[in-house]
Amino acid sequence: MADGSEKNAVVSNKKPITGLGVSKVIDSRNPELKEGDLFWGITGWEEYSLLKSSEGLFKIHHTDIPLSYYTGILGMPGLTAYGGFYEVCAPKKGEYVFVSAASGAVGQLVGQFAKLMGCYVVGSAGTQDKVELLKNKFGFDDAFNYKEEPDLNAAVKRYFPEGIDIYFENVGGKMLDAVLLNMRVRGRIAVCGMISQYNCDQPEGVHNLMSIVYKRVRIEGFAVADYYPQYSKFLDFILPYIREGKIKYVEDIVEGLENGPTALIGLFNGRNVGKQVVVVASQ
Amino acid sequence: MADGSEKNAVVSNKKPITGLGVSKVIDSRNPELKEGDLFWGITGWEEYSLLKSSEGLFKIHHTDIPLSYYTGILGMPGLTAYGGFYEVCAPKKGEYVFVSAASGAVGQLVGQFAKLMGCYVVGSAGTQDKVELLKNKFGFDDAFNYKEEPDLNAAVKRYFPEGIDIYFENVGGKMLDAVLLNMRVRGRIAVCGMISQYNCDQPEGVHNLMSIVYKRVRIEGFAVADYYPQYSKFLDFILPYIREGKIKYVEDIVEGLENGPTALIGLFNGRNVGKQVVVVASQ
Repeated sequence: MADGSEKNAVVSNKKPITGLGVSKVIDSRNPELKEGDLFWGITGWEEYSLLKSSEGLFKIHHTDIPLSYYTGILGMPGLTAYGGFYEVCAPKKGEYVFVSAASGAVGQLVGQFAKLMGCYVVGSAGTQDKVELLKNKFGFDDAFNYKEEPDLNAAVKRYFPEGIDIYFENVGGKMLDAVLLNMRVRGRIAVCGMISQYNCDQPEGVHNLMSIVYKRVRIEGFAVADYYPQYSKFLDFILPYIREGKIKYVEDIVEGLENGPTALIGLFNGRNVGKQVVVVASQ
Repeated sequence: MADGSEKNAVVSNKKPITGLGVSKVIDSRNPELKEGDLFWGITGWEEYSLLKSSEGLFKIHHTDIPLSYYTGILGMPGLTAYGGFYEVCAPKKGEYVFVSAASGAVGQLVGQFAKLMGCYVVGSAGTQDKVELLKNKFGFDDAFNYKEEPDLNAAVKRYFPEGIDIYFENVGGKMLDAVLLNMRVRGRIAVCGMISQYNCDQPEGVHNLMSIVYKRVRIEGFAVADYYPQYSKFLDFILPYIREGKIKYVEDIVEGLENGPTALIGLFNGRNVGKQVVVVASQ
């Protein structure tokens, strides 16, 4: 099972693409990972991988939950949402939270964390199906399809007449520009990613950065690796919510490694709904 | 004595422009400010001002230092540099610090604070005279004239081959774009102002914001008002350095209120050297 969502996947003629996946140990010379053990971490997009180090691999102890969840809610995206929202955004009850790419693996969790905190949360996504998912399944207070908004600034203002305290940034570009105009004083923007910009020859210009001064805004990028030491604390936090159904999680599962490239490309045009997972083999 | 550097100065047909100035009390119904007392704070650009509240006015207790210093190093710009550098930038010894508009009222202090902290500091300015001032008077490790650099990214890279830990941002636009490409991991950008953008019909686009994610950069705007409660602590910190000559301060003094408008406009094309002060009347 490999996960095609990694932006750091590198294509080479000699080596398989790497990505976050869930794997079973076939053979091991590492006493910490024995034959039959399950783990998640960076592996190759291939049926069998030879891993020379266990660095960045996390042993799986809870198997009452679908193993694919360790590519998402219980893996890197889950920890990203957890660290990014609770640590970088420093949310307070009642604050106004906006999440872009909100039905994605990270965004869907950030919105639900925001609701657990007692925040008001609105998400943006690129299809009407995703908008419905945000409102009906994930419990966002509201959601909109950014592709149907000719004026993003007006759209953001419509959903946040009082302004935004926290923006969880996944897309960059024009959306960031619209959000900057609508931030509240001492607002925070946690920059998780800027997917709209990754394949641009020249990244789009962002024009409204003066809001940073006028509104005393903090913009901060972060890396999930900073939160790896908190992984077991994160599991203790999220497992009960998953088991009780209080946090929902949606995946878009594609069968077969041969469909991996299409799944990867689909991420950039929003074809997937929820976390994109490619099933290479069932255990 | 009025200070023409305030970006929040408002022009109206009915009221004088307001700015930070040093004034003497002629008459007062406020027991905290008696006749003859000196204070700094927001007053009108006029010889006599009627102030209805003492909010935002700071009584002057130390007069062994030029009174004009209370429009700068001992006033709002000094406190801005102090709060912005020590609190927002959270500097550590040995870090690489870059200051734009570095010979200005705030920049010249930030650079000197950075040297006091044991940092390596480079400043940019718009004339060769200012560059010499930065290196020879203020003790910057190096300085350059941004107007003579056809490629700002290359210029920043030349002065910071190891990258920048702290950028004290006064100008915005192209300079910010060049700096973003050269930030180090966990770098901090304190946004004090963006003077290059204030008079643009459409602010310039900043293209390299993805560095925020890749390098885990924090960008933060701040307001001097947040540091007003620290004003007396700031005075205790800076007065000894001024008296011992360990912190230098350069002003550009213009005589006569009638020269105020020209002085104000000059700020936007860099005509002044150091803090721009307009002397309305001597006490």
